Order: sequence, then C-alpha cells, then structure tokens
Amino acid sequence: PLDPDDAVSDDGADVRFVKSIYIVSDGTGWTAEHCVNAALGQFDYCLVDHGCPVNTHLFSGIDDAEKLLEIIKQCAREGALLVYTLADSSMASSAKKACKLWGVSFTDVLGPITESIATHLGVSPSGLPRGASGIPLSDDYFRRIEAVEFTIKQDDGACPKNLAKADIVLTGVSRTGKTPLSIYLAQKGYKVANVPIVMGVEMPRTLFEVDPWKVFGLTINPAVLQNIRKTRAKTLGFSSESTSNYSERDHIREELEFAGRLFAQNPVWPIIDVTAKAIEETAAVVLRLYHDRKHKCLMPRISKRY
Amino acid sequence: PLDPDDAVSDDGADVRFVKSIYIVSDGTGWTAEHCVNAALGQFDYCLVDHGCPVNTHLFSGIDDAEKLLEIIKQCAREGALLVYTLADSSMASSAKKACKLWGVSFTDVLGPITESIATHLGVSPSGLPRGASGIPLSDDYFRRIEAVEFTIKQDDGACPKNLAKADIVLTGVSRTGKTPLSIYLAQKGYKVANVPIVMGVEMPRTLFEVDPWKVFGLTINPAVLQNIRKTRAKTLGFSSESTSNYSERDHIREELEFAGRLFAQNPVWPIIDVTAKAIEETAAVVLRLYHDRKHKCLMPRISKRY
Ligand SMILES: Nc1ncnc2c1ncn2[C@@H]1O[C@H](COP(=O)(O)O)[C@@H](O)[C@H]1O
Ligand SMILES: Nc1ncnc2c1ncn2[C@@H]1O[C@H](COP(=O)(O)O)[C@@H](O)[C@H]1O
Ligand SMILES: [Mg+2]
Ligand SMILES: [Mg+2]
Repeated sequence: PLDPDDAVSDDGADVRFVKSIYIVSDGTGWTAEHCVNAALGQFDYCLVDHGCPVNTHLFSGIDDAEKLLEIIKQCAREGALLVYTLADSSMASSAKKACKLWGVSFTDVLGPITESIATHLGVSPSGLPRGASGIPLSDDYFRRIEAVEFTIKQDDGACPKNLAKADIVLTGVSRTGKTPLSIYLAQKGYKVANVPIVMGVEMPRTLFEVDPWKVFGLTINPAVLQNIRKTRAKTLGFSSESTSNYSERDHIREELEFAGRLFAQNPVWPIIDVTAKAIEETAAVVLRLYHDRKHKCLMPRISKRY
Repeated sequence: PLDPDDAVSDDGADVRFVKSIYIVSDGTGWTAEHCVNAALGQFDYCLVDHGCPVNTHLFSGIDDAEKLLEIIKQCAREGALLVYTLADSSMASSAKKACKLWGVSFTDVLGPITESIATHLGVSPSGLPRGASGIPLSDDYFRRIEAVEFTIKQDDGACPKNLAKADIVLTGVSRTGKTPLSIYLAQKGYKVANVPIVMGVEMPRTLFEVDPWKVFGLTINPAVLQNIRKTRAKTLGFSSESTSNYSERDHIREELEFAGRLFAQNPVWPIIDVTAKAIEETAAVVLRLYHDRKHKCLMPRISKRY
C-alpha cells in the first residue's frame, strides 16, 4: 500500500476512478485490515498498477453510535464499501440499519464466526469490545513481549551462548531474511535466535550442541539473492566496487555452496527455500515443521489451547 | 494460548470437555487465525481459566482437495468447528459440500468480504491462492522489511543521530513497552526510533531537533509500572536488593515526574497512557494520531492506496 495522498492529484482529477473501502472497528481495526488485505490479494491483477486503484480508510476505536453514523454517512457520500467489526450487538445493528437506509454495501467480518463459535461452545458472546471487559492482559501476552525482547538481543548471532534458550534457531547466509523472519516468529511468542553463515568464519560451537530439531536452514536462489544484495548495497550507499565481493555472482554461488555443505553435514535441519516467499509465508512453513516435529500428528498442524 | 498438549491429560480424561476449532487455509492461515483470536475475545469470560477450554488446530498450505477432505473428515470425527479461507472457488465449494455431508459447522472467513469487494470494483476475484499468481513481492513488502531492520538498529536509543530518519520517535521511561511497540509499528512499515528517559541522564540533543510532530511520549500508572519492573527484575535474576532502586515506589514516582516535566516542556508531543493497553492497542492510538497530524482529516483515519 502507498500513501493515498501521494497518488491522488490535488485537483482530485482521478478521484472518480478510485474505489474506497471504509474499515471500522470498536477495537484496533487490525483484524478487519488483515482480512481486507488478504481479500485484496484476489484483485492484485487489477489494483493500482493496473488501473483500478483502491483506497482503504481505517477508523479504529469507534465505540459510540454517533461517530459510527457519521462515518457511515461519509461512506455513503463517497460511494465507499463498509467493512466493520463491532462487538456490541446494538452498535452492529445500528451499522446495518444505517447502511440499508443510505444504500451502503457492507460486510460484518466477525459476526458469522462469532455466532458459530457461540453455538459450538453453547455460550453467548460478551458483546464487550476489546479492553472493555476489565480482564487484565494475559500471561501469554507478556510471554510474547519477552520473546520479542529475547529475539532482538540474539539478532545476527549476537549471543551464541544463548542458543540453548531459544525455541527456534535460524541459520543462513546474509540476506536470506533471518532478521525479519525472527521478529515475525517472536511476535507469535517464539524465542528465536539467528546465526549468520559467513564464508571463512567458523560457526559458533553452540549451534552444534543445541537440539538439532529446533534448527532451520534458510536457502535462496543465487540470482535472486544477487539482486537483493545489489539493492541492499545501494541502500547502504556502498560504491559498486567495494560491494563487488558481497554481491558478485561467483561469490554468492560459493557462499551458498558453503552453506549447502554445512546443511548436508546436519541432515536433521530442515532446509527452507525462501526464494519469492513473503516473511509470513516462510514463517508458516517453519512453524508447521516445528510443531510437527514436536507433536508428530498425522496431519501437520499448529495447535493451541485457549 | 497455551500448548494444548500441556493441558490435556495423558489418559485423555478431559478431552470430552475441550471444544475444538479447525482452521484451514490454502495460504499461511494467519488471517483466519487472527479472526478466530478476535472472535474468541468475546468468550474470554468462559475459556480455559473458567472451565470451557478451546483448542485450535491450524492447517496451512492446504491447496488440494484430498488433503482438504481428510481434514474435514477428522474435524467431523472430533465434532470440531471448521473455519476456512480458500481462494479457489472449487476448493471452497468442496469444503462446503463435505461439511454438509458430514455435519460439520463451518465459517468461510473471507468469502463474503471478497464477494462484496468484487461487486464494488466490478471485477472478479482471481481465485488464485497467495503465492500462486506469480506476481512478485511488492516494493511495499521490501519497505516493511527495511523498516524492521532500521527499527532494530535504533532500539533503546542506540543511534540518536538517526532520529531524523525515523517516521516515528517514541520516548518514555524503562518498561513502558517502547521496544515491542517499535517492532510492532515497524512490521506495519514505519521506521521507528525509541529513546529511553532515564533520570539523571541527558536526553540526546537530536530529540529536540527532529520534527516534534513525529515524537510520542509514553506514560504509565506508577503502581502498574512497579509491578512490571518487579517481575522483570525477577526474570533478569536480580536480587531484591540490587533492584530496589529500579522498582521502588518513590523512585518510580520521581522518574515518571521527571518524564512528565520533559513532556510538559514539549507540549506538541502527544502523551499516551499505556496502562493496561496491549501493544497493538497502543499502536492503533499512535498511528491514528500520526496520520491525523499528517493529513488533518475531519475524522481521524489511516488511509492507504492499493
Ligand atoms: N480480547 C478481546 N476481547 C473482546 N473483544 C475483542 C478482543 N480482541 C478483539 N476483540 C473484538 O474483535 C474485533 C476486532 O478487534 P480489532 O482487531 O482490535 O479491531 C473488535 O470488535 C474487538 O472489539
Ligand atoms: N497476496 C495474495 N494473493 C492472493 N491471495 C491471497 C493473498 N494473500 C492472501 N490470500 C488468500 O487469502 C486467504 C488468507 O491468506 P492467509 O492469511 O495466508 O491464510 C488465503 O485463501 C490466501 O490464499
Ligand atoms: Mg478489526
Ligand atoms: Mg487464513
């Protein structure tokens, strides 16, 4: 997503062609935004680069009917689509009524799932928006914060003596995405350490002492890696000469071969090819393997108790 | 969430009381998981701590009908609820048919929203799961990774000379959640720097040289902060003596007053009370203010162009 104000011309010339989606939540709005993002993935082929730009407008913390109705009125004026999550059933029905009255198309993102969970559990939803229940932040919540702090401290092989304390250890050559992947996994509550593979630099001994079932190797297509490193070198402001070794094709191939030999010597480590994968996609693969190895289910899954 | 294997007794005694939710996606499953999490928030009052435990089982990368049907069969056997996101319409209708045949309750999380976006845009969804379209990772995607890397480097005031390059600067006393908040915002594409406020330590000059509209102060209730610090000190393994200064009530009050004076001297900085707020909740407040200050809309919102 781009900043829409950068794209819309000042005289509003192309505003008529831009379709808007209003996102409203009594909480943060992140759930509804996540859903809109995923759904828009189905229209990638015709979004901004292909002449059908979409603007989203996220309104969070909308917990009274007055603000809600004002937003829906504005939504009607702009001919926008409304996507909402509202825990309070009277707020949700106000939204529905207003949309019907003013001719606004709408989707209630969590209504159906909340209803089927209610039926499944045989209890009613509280109807209280996030934060309003007075239930304090959970232990799980603080555990996730701890995981983020742990993970930041171990970044880039910083503390090899802490590998034993990590839930997951990632290893791979520079620019295979170890850092953003570590952070993504940490936000989900896993303590992650990552260990760079650099040709000519010995790997820390502790890497071979930890439980090998928690170690994951990352690999990538050499041509793609070369491209990423070139861009990276430019960002860092290196001249093309001083970076030649870092991004040069032969060097990259040698380095990946070096990593490949290390991986071959540790056949228990799963090797994941990150080429063309988004961080959250690699994270899904890592966690599926991680849980599968821990629990050995018939069908690989990630299980949690609430 | 806890690990369900820790909670279910070996003889399976309480298994009958545990309700299961199966989550299936042809992608990562994170969207459906996010929705299930938010929906379960409505049942906080009766989950594990209150005698009505729920297990979730996430199956990602389910992109062929055979695997799909096997999971639904297992779901029927366990009497579980099914929540799915499937981009391919024939996969989605297979799921529906199988659920009806085997008596499984189900929710299609993204179907309705995808349909209303299709109608709104006047084009059809591609039907291609994530990763299958061959559309390469976007610039926005790499920008987000860069934001994470920038943010990690600036953590805890590490590079005060880089404050100018940050989109957002957070400042507050120790344990107001600056680090996890910075990381959360970074994942959303914002370059964040955070500057700790420590009594008796001078703030970096650059903090007062950057655009004050991008600086946010964090504050917290002293009693809550004292509690957090006590727990923290225990985790770090400090003895109660050596931590007395760090967690002691008077010291905390003085430190928060010191921060308060700094905030008073910089009245443009918004001050956000993080007491009892989850990181994503504070993030929602910060970003609403950030975008509002940048764009001055009638109704505060976060807008994006796709
Ligand atoms: N822990 C929670 N307790 C109650 N409701 C929640 C919780 N988390 C999210 N919700 C609700 O789920 C919807 C989506 O939340 P959000 O992602 O914050 O917009 C909103 O209607 C929230 O009020
Ligand atoms: N960029 C994308 N392009 C196409 N489909 C997507 C995209 N992102 C997510 N989806 C689909 O949206 C649903 C949720 O995605 P996920 O969160 O990865 O499980 C799945 O059916 C994905 O196939
Ligand atoms: Mg939401
Ligand atoms: Mg999903």
